[in-house]
This record gives sequence, structure tokens and C-alpha cells, in this order.
Amino acid sequence: MFENLKKYIEDYSSTAVSEEEYTLIQQSFKPKKLRKRQYLLQEGDVCKYMAFITQGSMRQYSVDESGNEHIVRLCIENWWVGDYESYVMLTPSKYNIDAVEDSELLLVTNEIIQDLKMKVPAIAKTIAKMDERNFIASQRRLHASISLSAEERYLELQKSYPELFQRFPQTMIASYLGITPETLSRIRKQLLSKPKSA
Amino acid sequence: MFENLKKYIEDYSSTAVSEEEYTLIQQSFKPKKLRKRQYLLQEGDVCKYMAFITQGSMRQYSVDESGNEHIVRLCIENWWVGDYESYVMLTPSKYNIDAVEDSELLLVTNEIIQDLKMKVPAIAKTIAKMDERNFIASQRRLHASISLSAEERYLELQKSYPELFQRFPQTMIASYLGITPETLSRIRKQLLSKPKSA
Repeated sequence: MFENLKKYIEDYSSTAVSEEEYTLIQQSFKPKKLRKRQYLLQEGDVCKYMAFITQGSMRQYSVDESGNEHIVRLCIENWWVGDYESYVMLTPSKYNIDAVEDSELLLVTNEIIQDLKMKVPAIAKTIAKMDERNFIASQRRLHASISLSAEERYLELQKSYPELFQRFPQTMIASYLGITPETLSRIRKQLLSKPKSA
Repeated sequence: MFENLKKYIEDYSSTAVSEEEYTLIQQSFKPKKLRKRQYLLQEGDVCKYMAFITQGSMRQYSVDESGNEHIVRLCIENWWVGDYESYVMLTPSKYNIDAVEDSELLLVTNEIIQDLKMKVPAIAKTIAKMDERNFIASQRRLHASISLSAEERYLELQKSYPELFQRFPQTMIASYLGITPETLSRIRKQLLSKPKSA
């Protein structure tokens, strides 16, 4: 499972990872398996680890006072999952993170990653780029949530992350889009009956 | 106006800026004054600069097909403004950025900032921390927009950034919260008539 992480770091940083660095990476990350529905994080706990997903799929969500789930992220292989705010600030998390499919993860604490950043240049580059891309992605999602219609948000998700539609049930896709499953079903029907534009 | 930026960098990075580094910073940033309503960026243009605000206030917003404005950010002194996605990816921006009050800015291109990061350690630390904090802030805002009620979003903004209520008109605060000015006015009246809880 470490090969995926090595490839990810080399791709992201455009920098080769030496044998010695690879050994250090293997010693720093802790493998963990989760069965479907098991938690990586529960609301109120501090998120001690960021997790690189080598297999499976995960979701991050909050539960409001009426018991409704609001999914903020859906994640698959080669993505990271964790509550970044809680991880960096060591504050109790507002989120739950659980496995949607049986999953395999590589966990790392912030302390260890800060140390790795100094020892492995490819890791420092990867993290700088990830922070940049994460900020861009969350700005995009924010823009979509405050200014696009449900149909436009659906189309944007389909364009940006088509793989999510194969991996997650409709109810979770609907929650991620902030709509009811009925609205999602209606949007899909409408789009299917529309003539395709260029 | 450069003193504010120097103080900001030293505070953020917990690292002193030497005289030599300060000279380099002064040579790298371009001062710009904007009168109220003048644009820093217009939709469709590439955002070539990130701007550090030394005086005044700015807003970043998109305009939808029906001509409605959606404010994604409200910014005041000692904050940065710019469309980060466009700035990093060199893609046309979806946003407009204009001055809400007469403003003074310090502009810098991504090319120059990448160079400065290597020459001035305090700048590298500041940017790493800014990327981290920006991601956390945009995650919080996303969470608020998809799972909190209008009243809860109002209270969260008041708690996190009380200064914005003194600096921006109610119409802009309402747009930032994704509600109509009438709803904002109703929320304020309701909160005033509620007994305060602990």
C-alpha cells in the first residue's frame, strides 16, 4: 500500500523519492484497515491523523440538531481524508468520518509530517501544493454552494469528479450537493430528457 | 504602508525580517490606490496580483446570469485579497473585486512571491501558514453555508469577524451570508428581542 503513497508524492512534487526517504516514509505512516461503517473520527474528538486512502472510500459529515447529516467531503483512493482544522488547531472536531466501503488507510500525525517536511523535500513540495489545491477546491465548492442552482452544482460535480457517481449511493451524492434524493432524481431525469448542447 | 506588511509577516511567521529582506520586500510589492468602486479585478480577466490591504476595504463577488451579486469575501486592512485560483492557475476569474472604501494596496505577482519565498524565510513561513488558515476558513464557511441556518450563519460571522459589521453596509453583509437584506433585518430584530443565553 505504500507504493501508492510514493507514486502520489512523486507525481505531486515532480521530485523523485530516494530509497532512504522511502524507508523513512514507511516508518512514519501507520497502516489501518476500516470495515464499512467503521469510524476514523467521531464528532467531539480531536482529529489526530490525516489519512491517505490506498483502498476504499470514505465520507466526512456533520450531524445537525435535528439529526440530519450534511456531507462535506466524499473521498476515494489516492485522496486524503481528515478534519484539517481539528488536526492543525487540535480542537474538537465538528465532523464524523467513516468508511463507505471496506478501506485501507495510511495515517500520519501533524508532528510527524512537520518533521518529514524538513527531511524529505518531496514531502514539503507535496504539502505546499496540496494546501494550495485544497484551498482552491474549497473556494470552488463554496462558490457553487452560494451562487449555483442545484442543477448547476450537479453538473459541476459530474464534470470535476465523475468517478464519485460510480462509488457513492445517490443519497450521499444528494447530501453532498445539499439537496434531497428526490430533487437529485428529478434533476437527473430532466437532464436525460434535455437535448445535449455543445 | 510597508510597515503594516512587515509587521504582518513578522507576526505571522514569528520570524524577524532583516533590513536587507525588508528592502527586498519593498522592491517586490507595487503600491496601488483605488478609489471607492474602482476595480482590482474584473470577471474574465486573469488575477495577476494578490493584494495586501494597508488601508480601506474590498469585496470579492460573482454575478450570476440573472444579474445577482454573490459576495464570497469581505476584506479589510491587513487582509489579502485576490482570486487565488486564477492567480495560481492563470485561468480567467469568475469574480469581480472592487473597493468598498478608498483603499491602499500592495500588489505582488505569483512569480515574484515564489522568488521571495526562497530568499526570505519569514515569507515562506507566512505563506505556508496563510494557505493553511485560508483552507480552514473556507472549510468553515462551506460548512456554515451547507449546514447552518441563516441565523446561525449570522451569529458565527458576528463571533468570528465582528469588525465587518462596522465596515460594510447591511446589503453586503446579507449577500455574504447568502440571504436577503429583509431576512437579515428580521434576524437582527429577533435576536434583539431574545433573552440572552449564556
